[in-house]
Amino acid sequence: MKFSIQRDQFVHSVQHVTKAISPRTTIPILTGVKIEANDEGVTLTGSDSDISIESFIPAVVGDEQHVEVEEAGSIVLQAKFFAEIVKKLPNDTIEIAVNDQFSTTLKSGSSVFNLNGLDPEEYPRLPQIEEENTFKLRTDLLKNMIRQTVFAVSTVETRPILTGVNWAIEDSKLMCTATDSHRLAMRSAQIEANGSDISFSNVVIPGKSLNELNKILDESEEWVDIIVTDNQILFKAENLLFFSRLLDGNYPATKNMIPSHSKTSVTLDAKGFMQAIERSLLLSREGKNNVVNLKTLDQGHLEITSVTPEVGKVTEDIHSIEFSGEELRISFNGKNIIDALKVIDSSEINIDFTGAMSPFVLKPTDHDNMLHLFSPVRTY
Amino acid sequence: MKFSIQRDQFVHSVQHVTKAISPRTTIPILTGVKIEANDEGVTLTGSDSDISIESFIPAVVGDEQHVEVEEAGSIVLQAKFFAEIVKKLPNDTIEIAVNDQFSTTLKSGSSVFNLNGLDPEEYPRLPQIEEENTFKLRTDLLKNMIRQTVFAVSTVETRPILTGVNWAIEDSKLMCTATDSHRLAMRSAQIEANGSDISFSNVVIPGKSLNELNKILDESEEWVDIIVTDNQILFKAENLLFFSRLLDGNYPATKNMIPSHSKTSVTLDAKGFMQAIERSLLLSREGKNNVVNLKTLDQGHLEITSVTPEVGKVTEDIHSIEFSGEELRISFNGKNIIDALKVIDSSEINIDFTGAMSPFVLKPTDHDNMLHLFSPVRTY
Repeated sequence: MKFSIQRDQFVHSVQHVTKAISPRTTIPILTGVKIEANDEGVTLTGSDSDISIESFIPAVVGDEQHVEVEEAGSIVLQAKFFAEIVKKLPNDTIEIAVNDQFSTTLKSGSSVFNLNGLDPEEYPRLPQIEEENTFKLRTDLLKNMIRQTVFAVSTVETRPILTGVNWAIEDSKLMCTATDSHRLAMRSAQIEANGSDISFSNVVIPGKSLNELNKILDESEEWVDIIVTDNQILFKAENLLFFSRLLDGNYPATKNMIPSHSKTSVTLDAKGFMQAIERSLLLSREGKNNVVNLKTLDQGHLEITSVTPEVGKVTEDIHSIEFSGEELRISFNGKNIIDALKVIDSSEINIDFTGAMSPFVLKPTDHDNMLHLFSPVRTY
Repeated sequence: MKFSIQRDQFVHSVQHVTKAISPRTTIPILTGVKIEANDEGVTLTGSDSDISIESFIPAVVGDEQHVEVEEAGSIVLQAKFFAEIVKKLPNDTIEIAVNDQFSTTLKSGSSVFNLNGLDPEEYPRLPQIEEENTFKLRTDLLKNMIRQTVFAVSTVETRPILTGVNWAIEDSKLMCTATDSHRLAMRSAQIEANGSDISFSNVVIPGKSLNELNKILDESEEWVDIIVTDNQILFKAENLLFFSRLLDGNYPATKNMIPSHSKTSVTLDAKGFMQAIERSLLLSREGKNNVVNLKTLDQGHLEITSVTPEVGKVTEDIHSIEFSGEELRISFNGKNIIDALKVIDSSEINIDFTGAMSPFVLKPTDHDNMLHLFSPVRTY
């Protein structure tokens, strides 16, 4: 293998595929980046066997030659060093050549790196995916749907299925749901099926995969093709393939958890509410329970308090924009509320309570595509 | 005690004094910030008994009233919560009042914090310092002198005296020296004595103190008064007192370590040299020895190499601006060279070697106020 390549394109692709590579893998070949060159361009692959990322750098884009391949071939190079090296090379062009025994030379300006490579034949094949269940999302919408749900997945492995986000499609509507069993985030959107109708319900994507995908995708209006199989999901963007394993098991039925009625309803300024909860958590960090107490006062005022006996007490007075229903005293995990408020991009929110011991629903007031559910905390 | 204060001034001062406060202190009262209010303004104090910082907020600055004191007094409040709280309070003004039993109320807008305070009578007095050995430095010069030496102090406690920077004054020249016994950084400057002549030689300031001082001082042309006693140094800036304990023991004589002759002399572009060494260290991170080999080639070229057997080899070719003297092969710790090059603000540097086994001297070419000395590394 021998080719020269524009450094910036190469750095960009290397950074993408190394996101899949884990230094803690037990499969030595997966600590490397696979590099494959042919007349069409250079393909880079990184994988931790759960996530696999393939990035393609075309030889020619428009009038510009990004890659000049002198001899086709492939090699696997240690990812840990490789990403750092290509970033710091002095020249705009990098020459890469594989010699005997997988030994590889990188040249750029007055720098020469001789690296010990690994046998590319040992590198596992990427999953073969038939393009049956496919649909597409615009990149900016996809990124929002990830950001607005993935924070709510469980981070403990006691119920592994909850470490993923459930994706379901019914009647051309994609519904993403994440829950750690104390709080739940739901986000829905209309989708465009590629050709025929598509529906599925028990697709559970690991939260980690979605976080990595979100880092790689740049905010844009480009379309991403999404292909779902029994145990894999594939996201296809321009010159980029992102494969993720799906989680085994049945995602819990979440729809009937959501209360349909309301006993106390308040509309609040999202930012003011968030800052008040942030302040009320300042003292409770010590105890790490993050419990905040909410009490309705007269004339639509809410009082938020938090007490940490050895340190002190915070009291916040909040004026609601609208208030209706019964008086209420309830306690909840303030940190969970803040997490949700951070991903709601609306300026006003509504909370529907159904009593001190029942889950409550928080929604933006300006659209119906998002819902957050929280369990109260017993304080006695 | 009862007063109201402008939040921004208060936040600024709290951030300064909390730099001295260590959560790991064994003296409970020192986990707090001392707040003292009287007609002149509010004084905040933080200390870990090595470093003590006092920040004063005058009641009136020009036409502006920053503090309104209703009742003089003092209190000690937990620093950990306090800095966070004042930063996040909603209003421009904060009202602070001490009630019975050191319980303290902070009010700002619709927020009320009730905090358990500590007895201010238990707070230790700051060192009493007689203003005898005093001189002054401009803040920007003081910051440079700290930055350009403190990185070279030892971080291990085997020889505690080397964890500090030695300050000495002779003939109105301040000389700052730091060494960890493998590399040495020296920086000198002319100073202005306050009144009479001043000279001292064995003043050793803990590196940690200088780092904290450097963080607090803003880049400016204001003067800082510096007062040295047997076991303390005091830096006096506007509305700020910074006390540091001095280290016990005799700082090693460093002057005669510096070779006065040269066998090989090279002048190099500082940035190109730094980048070449950075690249040559990319593979050796694994081994953590940071050893770089330098070899003179023909026509003023230098070759820098670094080999990590299991990973590979880096070769860098550097063209020197000037070269004179003998051929040379030498190995050294590349990371130490980078540390020095980062604080040299000049674009060209000169290195004088006195043989493969002897320390070598690196200096900027455009002034004589700075010198870096390095021991070579034996590679066989």
